[in-house]
Amino acid sequence: MGKLAIGIDIGGTTTKFGVVDAEGNILEQDRISTTKYEDVNLFINDLDSKLTPMIQRNGGVTNFIGIGVGAPNGNYYSGTIEYAPNLNWKGIVPIAELIHKKIGLPTKLTNDANAAAVGEMQYGYAKGIKHFICITLGTGVGSGIVIDGKIVLGHDGFAGELGHTIIRKGGRFHKGTGSHGCLESYASATGVRETAFEFLAEDPTQESLLRNYTTEELTSQTVYECASKGDVIAKKVFEFTGEILGEALANFVMFSSPEMIVLFGGLTKAGDLLMKPTKASMEANLIQIFKNKVKIVFSNLHESDAAILGASALVWE
Amino acid sequence: MGKLAIGIDIGGTTTKFGVVDAEGNILEQDRISTTKYEDVNLFINDLDSKLTPMIQRNGGVTNFIGIGVGAPNGNYYSGTIEYAPNLNWKGIVPIAELIHKKIGLPTKLTNDANAAAVGEMQYGYAKGIKHFICITLGTGVGSGIVIDGKIVLGHDGFAGELGHTIIRKGGRFHKGTGSHGCLESYASATGVRETAFEFLAEDPTQESLLRNYTTEELTSQTVYECASKGDVIAKKVFEFTGEILGEALANFVMFSSPEMIVLFGGLTKAGDLLMKPTKASMEANLIQIFKNKVKIVFSNLHESDAAILGASALVWE
Repeated sequence: MGKLAIGIDIGGTTTKFGVVDAEGNILEQDRISTTKYEDVNLFINDLDSKLTPMIQRNGGVTNFIGIGVGAPNGNYYSGTIEYAPNLNWKGIVPIAELIHKKIGLPTKLTNDANAAAVGEMQYGYAKGIKHFICITLGTGVGSGIVIDGKIVLGHDGFAGELGHTIIRKGGRFHKGTGSHGCLESYASATGVRETAFEFLAEDPTQESLLRNYTTEELTSQTVYECASKGDVIAKKVFEFTGEILGEALANFVMFSSPEMIVLFGGLTKAGDLLMKPTKASMEANLIQIFKNKVKIVFSNLHESDAAILGASALVWE
Repeated sequence: MGKLAIGIDIGGTTTKFGVVDAEGNILEQDRISTTKYEDVNLFINDLDSKLTPMIQRNGGVTNFIGIGVGAPNGNYYSGTIEYAPNLNWKGIVPIAELIHKKIGLPTKLTNDANAAAVGEMQYGYAKGIKHFICITLGTGVGSGIVIDGKIVLGHDGFAGELGHTIIRKGGRFHKGTGSHGCLESYASATGVRETAFEFLAEDPTQESLLRNYTTEELTSQTVYECASKGDVIAKKVFEFTGEILGEALANFVMFSSPEMIVLFGGLTKAGDLLMKPTKASMEANLIQIFKNKVKIVFSNLHESDAAILGASALVWE
């Protein structure tokens, strides 16, 4: 009987994976690109070429209980990734079966944001909290909802796609889904970048450090760096992003009345530039009974750690 | 040991109550106004003057286990109605305690829409369904959310205030809360009436049966009757209402992925005039993984029955 687990986090850009013991220590970890592979089988091959030696170094397959995977649109019940707008692999991808066949270990799948929420519940600020929502602000916007200490899966395993809720009727186009005005088109790294371009175009006479970057170079990280130096447009980008995110959070609070919202992922590096407008906007949009009750925190877990730990936790369920 | 329960449904306009047996038969029922009483103590007095004789006729207090109450912003944990925008009684009202002291039976409270959802789960279309959302379209818009067969209460007992989620940024003003563009300001009886006035004003040369009514006379019922006769503006009112409701439902589906949405309350009398645009709009706003999966149904329970039954079910928990 094995004592270790593999946790795999398939993100929109990068896939991270590691060996985890029952106490939540990551003994070893590595990563490969997600975007590089048009064909999922080539992705599985490269994953295997890194994972199998890693398993060998840790006592071989007999020393492992199984593999837990978090992925966008990952379905716990079916083990398939279905119509993930942010991945190259279209339609329904039987990812759990593919990994199981390749590596030879039982494999469970869930939504990447659900995996992050499990990580937060076991090792982060949400420890001991029965009602919380984890929002991942990365390439896209994902969410894991916890009610009464359990991840909300819904009747079909797809609950918690809060990034795709519409927050601006007729708003910004989302390439992956064709929708207009969803949260993800604003409150993701991609969204921040797009907002920056919009604000630069709207206000062509306003000086901005952002104008020193080429279209390629300008990322959410660049916007953060410029905002930290006091750049007016860059700061406005985070105010706008926080305003929209806060409105969405208010709607979510009025759904499940969580005690805490944990924000997670690349965009949280912006710190107070993002937190202040987000909190203010959430409070302004809540009705009386919910005001000044809900904590918003940035995850204190190392990003790749939480995702790997959360995914690996599926194995011990 | 008693065998009967009292179910009380405190609605925005009317309070309905009845004697219920363990099989879900309503042995007797009655109603009083909710709006008439500025002081909650006068409300309790009148409720008692109807309820106590009703209890006497059914074997006296010793024949009853307790009282279950559904009310707007009713809190299961504290037994208080808190800051209900649609009621005269402001602040925090200890309604369960007031009723308990007056009638002498143990009293439990929940949100009125949660009570309706429990009624649907036990006696309606949602029987046997583990994941569904019940939306009440009455004077206001309430909601009861069921996940894994349990009402979602949230960390403080206030979960499921979907009528107050913002669906149109900067939209119609809501008198009760001061918010702009919440679902309740459009998809309630009050909202339908307001939409009718707006459409009549926007299109002053368009003939409409609705113009035959005074401001007082024009209600959601009038709009329904005119729409049934083919009135262009009245039909447009329901199309608009359904469009907004459908957008909101799509957002809710992407939160908890329910198998079914049960619509309940006065507005559902509009039948296909409301159902068709609601379904079309919901489907148009869902991402691929949720499309053509979620049933929307109108409750088949008699309105006051479901609310009384649902409230009484609190007693048997």
